[in-house]
Amino acid sequence: MKNEPTYNLLNSINTPDDLRQLNVEQLPEVCDELRQDIIKELSCNPGHFAASLGTVELTVALHYIYNTPYDRIVWDVGHQAYGHKILTGRREAFFTNRKLGGIRPFPSPEESEYDTFTCGHASNSISAALGMAVAASKKGEKDRRVVAILGDGSMSGGLAFEGLNNTSTTSNNLLIILNDNDMAIDRSVGGMKQYLFNLTTSNRYNQLRFKASRLLFKLGILNDERRKALIRFGNSLKSMAAQQQNIFEGMNIRYFGPIDGHDVKNLTRVLRDIKDLQGPKILHLHTVKGKGFAPAEKHATEWHAPGKFDPVTGERFIVNTVGIPPLYQDVFGNTLVELAEANSKIFGVTPAMPSGCSMNILMSKMPGRAFDVGIAEGHAVTFSGGMAKDGLLPFCNIYSSFMQRAYDNIIHDVAIQNLSVVFCLDRAGLVGEDGPTHHGAFDMAYLRPIPNLTIASPMDEHELRRLMYTAQLPDKGPFVLRYPRGRGVLVDWICPLEEIPVGKGRKLKDGNDLAVISIGPIGNKVASAISHAEAESGRDIAHYDLRFLKPLDEELLHEVGRNFSRVITVEDGVIQGGMGSAVLEFMSDHGYTPAIKRIGLPDRFVQHGTVTELYQLCGMDENSITKELLNQCALLPVTSKIKELTN
Amino acid sequence: MKNEPTYNLLNSINTPDDLRQLNVEQLPEVCDELRQDIIKELSCNPGHFAASLGTVELTVALHYIYNTPYDRIVWDVGHQAYGHKILTGRREAFFTNRKLGGIRPFPSPEESEYDTFTCGHASNSISAALGMAVAASKKGEKDRRVVAILGDGSMSGGLAFEGLNNTSTTSNNLLIILNDNDMAIDRSVGGMKQYLFNLTTSNRYNQLRFKASRLLFKLGILNDERRKALIRFGNSLKSMAAQQQNIFEGMNIRYFGPIDGHDVKNLTRVLRDIKDLQGPKILHLHTVKGKGFAPAEKHATEWHAPGKFDPVTGERFIVNTVGIPPLYQDVFGNTLVELAEANSKIFGVTPAMPSGCSMNILMSKMPGRAFDVGIAEGHAVTFSGGMAKDGLLPFCNIYSSFMQRAYDNIIHDVAIQNLSVVFCLDRAGLVGEDGPTHHGAFDMAYLRPIPNLTIASPMDEHELRRLMYTAQLPDKGPFVLRYPRGRGVLVDWICPLEEIPVGKGRKLKDGNDLAVISIGPIGNKVASAISHAEAESGRDIAHYDLRFLKPLDEELLHEVGRNFSRVITVEDGVIQGGMGSAVLEFMSDHGYTPAIKRIGLPDRFVQHGTVTELYQLCGMDENSITKELLNQCALLPVTSKIKELTN
Repeated sequence: MKNEPTYNLLNSINTPDDLRQLNVEQLPEVCDELRQDIIKELSCNPGHFAASLGTVELTVALHYIYNTPYDRIVWDVGHQAYGHKILTGRREAFFTNRKLGGIRPFPSPEESEYDTFTCGHASNSISAALGMAVAASKKGEKDRRVVAILGDGSMSGGLAFEGLNNTSTTSNNLLIILNDNDMAIDRSVGGMKQYLFNLTTSNRYNQLRFKASRLLFKLGILNDERRKALIRFGNSLKSMAAQQQNIFEGMNIRYFGPIDGHDVKNLTRVLRDIKDLQGPKILHLHTVKGKGFAPAEKHATEWHAPGKFDPVTGERFIVNTVGIPPLYQDVFGNTLVELAEANSKIFGVTPAMPSGCSMNILMSKMPGRAFDVGIAEGHAVTFSGGMAKDGLLPFCNIYSSFMQRAYDNIIHDVAIQNLSVVFCLDRAGLVGEDGPTHHGAFDMAYLRPIPNLTIASPMDEHELRRLMYTAQLPDKGPFVLRYPRGRGVLVDWICPLEEIPVGKGRKLKDGNDLAVISIGPIGNKVASAISHAEAESGRDIAHYDLRFLKPLDEELLHEVGRNFSRVITVEDGVIQGGMGSAVLEFMSDHGYTPAIKRIGLPDRFVQHGTVTELYQLCGMDENSITKELLNQCALLPVTSKIKELTN
Repeated sequence: MKNEPTYNLLNSINTPDDLRQLNVEQLPEVCDELRQDIIKELSCNPGHFAASLGTVELTVALHYIYNTPYDRIVWDVGHQAYGHKILTGRREAFFTNRKLGGIRPFPSPEESEYDTFTCGHASNSISAALGMAVAASKKGEKDRRVVAILGDGSMSGGLAFEGLNNTSTTSNNLLIILNDNDMAIDRSVGGMKQYLFNLTTSNRYNQLRFKASRLLFKLGILNDERRKALIRFGNSLKSMAAQQQNIFEGMNIRYFGPIDGHDVKNLTRVLRDIKDLQGPKILHLHTVKGKGFAPAEKHATEWHAPGKFDPVTGERFIVNTVGIPPLYQDVFGNTLVELAEANSKIFGVTPAMPSGCSMNILMSKMPGRAFDVGIAEGHAVTFSGGMAKDGLLPFCNIYSSFMQRAYDNIIHDVAIQNLSVVFCLDRAGLVGEDGPTHHGAFDMAYLRPIPNLTIASPMDEHELRRLMYTAQLPDKGPFVLRYPRGRGVLVDWICPLEEIPVGKGRKLKDGNDLAVISIGPIGNKVASAISHAEAESGRDIAHYDLRFLKPLDEELLHEVGRNFSRVITVEDGVIQGGMGSAVLEFMSDHGYTPAIKRIGLPDRFVQHGTVTELYQLCGMDENSITKELLNQCALLPVTSKIKELTN
């Protein structure tokens, strides 16, 4: 297995300046070495894989032609930016990628001046880059160039369209690079994909325009009056073919392409030709996700983030899952099929995450019963609202941090009408290696104020199944289920589907001295912490699983308020405005005065690392909770029983 | 002035069924009468005006051709739906439009079965209607037709694009009507507007297709194999002109038009021709906002919602504003100019609301210093983030309820990077007649959990000016200012621009018995209520203006926690998770145990009415606050002074 590749060129590249010293003829070799390096690094240190293989040539060409970091390169999502990280001084540190304290999962301005804007949520690059291009123009930095790169998957997001729509309304020289590989994580969907395909098959006109403009450049005709001449040129072509404008040109954005995104030499030529053209431009590239690694080219979705693998054979090291609890995602996916088989009104809706949330199980078992609407969270919710209004029962699955994009849609298009849509918030709580853009930290706080919502979180797989069953019973109105990324706690996760009364929590354990109220799967850690703390302190600690953030279980909370002078709340969400605050509000409103200690995520963005490490850092792992329980026990009045124990 | 028009036809129309009894030749007269009725009603009972005049013919044609309410008509925003309301049984009640308990400001399913979905926030109609069309298809209701109508302004919203992108990916017969009048409230902006204009000037191909398909219908050629023949026909044309697809056709949505939206007879013909075509379709209409009322045609922005006017002369009854406090909007608009003159980094950003938020003052005084980005709240925020990242200082003004659409953009594109963007949340708190879709109820609760934000609310015009000044000082990070719709409290609103220390509230009034903490302009009502309550109870009540929701003024809150056993919090936002909860959290975290009564908006959607009426209904007017203060006083221990007074 020791087959270390040698990197003649890559070893000498510490910054893009080094890259720019090379001859253009050497670039294919740089690309080859960069690709091998990515394959080698990712094979032993898992991360996003196939996307970065598809942008090797683009990355090299961009840093070769543009004067980075003075020129701004704005990536979108950032799955594809590993090559960019390696070329911009982070090759040595790349083995720390996605690890606590190591290289960040996505481009991040906090990490490098080459990373110009936050990446993680799709479709924001055009808007951000347009802001930068306008800033350059307004500040008189006419030599600063700004490039936004986004995939065709990101083009289905409304934000990308809003940015595009706004691109030509102000003076700027923005270049948008459309990296078209027909993929998001799963295959791209939607009319725009079709439109881009049609553009490609009817590209003769564009090729002609591009070749002609290149010729004019080369002949030196454009040197002086470059801009005016080009405009004249463009206009004359346009008047010759008035109806042949594509959508980009119709929006006053000059369109070039499509061209092969893996021909690095041609790519540098094209970028050099268009980089100083005045006004907004779009360059349409065709690339292959997973390019240069055969298994990834063949199965790009599986190889989006494949885990460890053999870089030579392509064999993936699949974790043995026999005898360990299932992923919450698979419990969701299988239970949805079970429910959909019994209730013909149920349909699935996912914004481009069928494999991530396991809705692909429903898609393959019951074709026509689920919709992948593309990267379009707002539409996913409003579309679900329309379906619910006319009698269907959509299960709309959106990652918690992405649901932030559909906040108004929940309020305006579902909650006001009290429509029965089941919102399944996957990846609630800390998600680990994907870091601050992806943590599902805010959902309980931002959803709780919305009237008409029911909000619940299951403590384990059985509870998830029962809550999913409950949510689809008649007339439940909008029903939110939040559950985390990763594995549950029950190996035997199948259980009968039974109704859980809405707004009813449960007492998991009796106790007289202290009450702990938790919500969601963190309750399992709380249960262990309670055992430890009881053993150490001799106290009796009661444990309540609130289950429903809204409506609150008033009976349960009255019981707590009446019987306890000290209460601890534990939740895997931000503590401002979250479940603990709901308990505080209840106690205050009903005149109870227990001392309440809230445990939850702090008021700062939590970085990346393993979930275990991060909860530890936030004081929310089992040990930290145990310590806090013991702190609270120490504040209780000393009883004769305790006196006896401590003597 | 008594010039009551006579309505030969309109008087006989109580439901669309009545309309459908008429001969098509009578429709122009119906339109004329409907238009006169709208003018008459709106002249004395103010509301949205010009938009409904532009859709008179469309409204009549839709209800004439479609079998409403079985067929679904989905409006967008709903400014244009007064004619629809009048034709669907609400003519008699129309004089109650926008009044408490009366006709709702926008179409609302709670009000009428003809109103199919919530209206108010732009661009949601395609997604909602697509959901309904899919429901009809999945439920086997093949005869149910679904029509979405949206303006070209709404087409700049990303949600509309997401819906459009998704329209052709599933089996449905949705008809989208694009009501193109080149206006939102202000003039439309953006590339799409340009694209639609180009479509219009190059429409010969579409006209040809449409006329040919109509001919085929009339000849009966399509009767049996209608669908297949049409597809063949379309395809043959397409292959003849492969590159001539417009964006809609490229997305597999059949495009018809543009046609004149004021020729009601032709409109009914066209709708009849296309209503049973299989698959998604778009019909592009040209209309004139304010059609049929000369002053409104000429100045559509002013006549969007003109207030009372003379229906004959068009003279508007302008309220005399001499000697009364200014609108917060104008204080914002003028102060922004003042700041922008002194600080060249300042730029304004508004999503299609330059006149609503008074950013038009900056636009006219300093052209090039403000951007109207179209109805695109998400883009407005991310674009501002890009500008801030490269050194500009954007003041991004978005109505509080519309900011719900940019929630993720605030978190992901601004707060994570701690960028200095000033968010100006206009229309915070209850807005009155525009009702539940427009109340700025949630912002404090949904913004408070976000790290790095500063959140402030001014109690009056001077405070607004000082906070705006403070927000633009160096390195303040993301800074939220929320202020209400309507007039302030100070006639003399100009004051020196001075810094307010971030996170510092102020004690407005000393007192020993009870502390009231308020935030924002509701503090003025609180101040009066305190005077009344003190006079009646003999108690001393302290009043604190918290000013900053985040960061909290810890010194102020420690003072309150140490000195008071009873505290009342008052805010014009939802009480779950809002300012009162922040105070509860602080007291709990620091071991203070005052009894806290929170006053704020309840956990239900508040309907429409005047602001005064609505605050009264919510127990938040001056009287209600006084009563609550007296209730709290009554719970205080009786002191000798009070004993003396009450004896």
